[in-house]
Amino acid sequence: MTEKAIQDYYPDDIAVCYGCGRHNPVGLGIKTYWDGSEGTCRFTPRDDHLAYPGVIYGGLIACLVDCHSIGTAVAAAHDAEGRDPETGLLILFFTARLEIDYIAPTPAGTELFLAARVEEAGPRKSVISCTVHANDVLCAKARIVAVRKRD
Amino acid sequence: MTEKAIQDYYPDDIAVCYGCGRHNPVGLGIKTYWDGSEGTCRFTPRDDHLAYPGVIYGGLIACLVDCHSIGTAVAAAHDAEGRDPETGLLILFFTARLEIDYIAPTPAGTELFLAARVEEAGPRKSVISCTVHANDVLCAKARIVAVRKRD
Repeated sequence: MTEKAIQDYYPDDIAVCYGCGRHNPVGLGIKTYWDGSEGTCRFTPRDDHLAYPGVIYGGLIACLVDCHSIGTAVAAAHDAEGRDPETGLLILFFTARLEIDYIAPTPAGTELFLAARVEEAGPRKSVISCTVHANDVLCAKARIVAVRKRD
Repeated sequence: MTEKAIQDYYPDDIAVCYGCGRHNPVGLGIKTYWDGSEGTCRFTPRDDHLAYPGVIYGGLIACLVDCHSIGTAVAAAHDAEGRDPETGLLILFFTARLEIDYIAPTPAGTELFLAARVEEAGPRKSVISCTVHANDVLCAKARIVAVRKRD
């Protein structure tokens, strides 16, 4: 699962998400890589993804955190249940709640690094934590409540 | 203040926000109208602003809530202090914390309606609540902590 992003396994008929759907031609193309304990994502904002000159838009940070945390929940659930996302029905999650603390202005002109972990995994609900760093500075931290789609 | 959106008063040199900056040619163009007690915003998502087919992307909802709540905080602060945003230095706020509960899937193909109120207004920090409706159905509710830029 480390070579392919989890979003690359999302079913063709639903992979239209503006944040991370591979079938959305104008979307952000967010990709989550799972290493067995953590989901990571690297993303370089566009020049127009600004809040103020030199500072990245907080709404973009919310988009990144949302899709990457859901991707991490999906990948972790497959791992925990010994299910291969390559085969069979994918386990899917929806965002029920998103909390973000903006800790420092996110600088423009640099790659962002997101790391997410599953803090709680219940039968129906998972809680994911996610951090956003730019140049090794913590810019935002988030907590996401994800609800599992019945499969 | 009801005819002109509060974002139309943002200073030229900083009005580049992807969410609401009038000098961002590819941005969302979010506009907040203040009536003295509430900020309202109407926004029709693009066809590509999807999470799944037929459902609007939660990251877009976060963008709308963020800029509209900040706009409401700015407008309310001018009102509370009897300052005219048409003249002089604008009171500005930054998002410090964003919390969103996604209550129902937001349907695609319809205009969204946001309403925001200032719940607490301190000298440095304001708390804003915001709801997102589609076709009179409550799809999301949010709480934003906004920090005032020293002016």
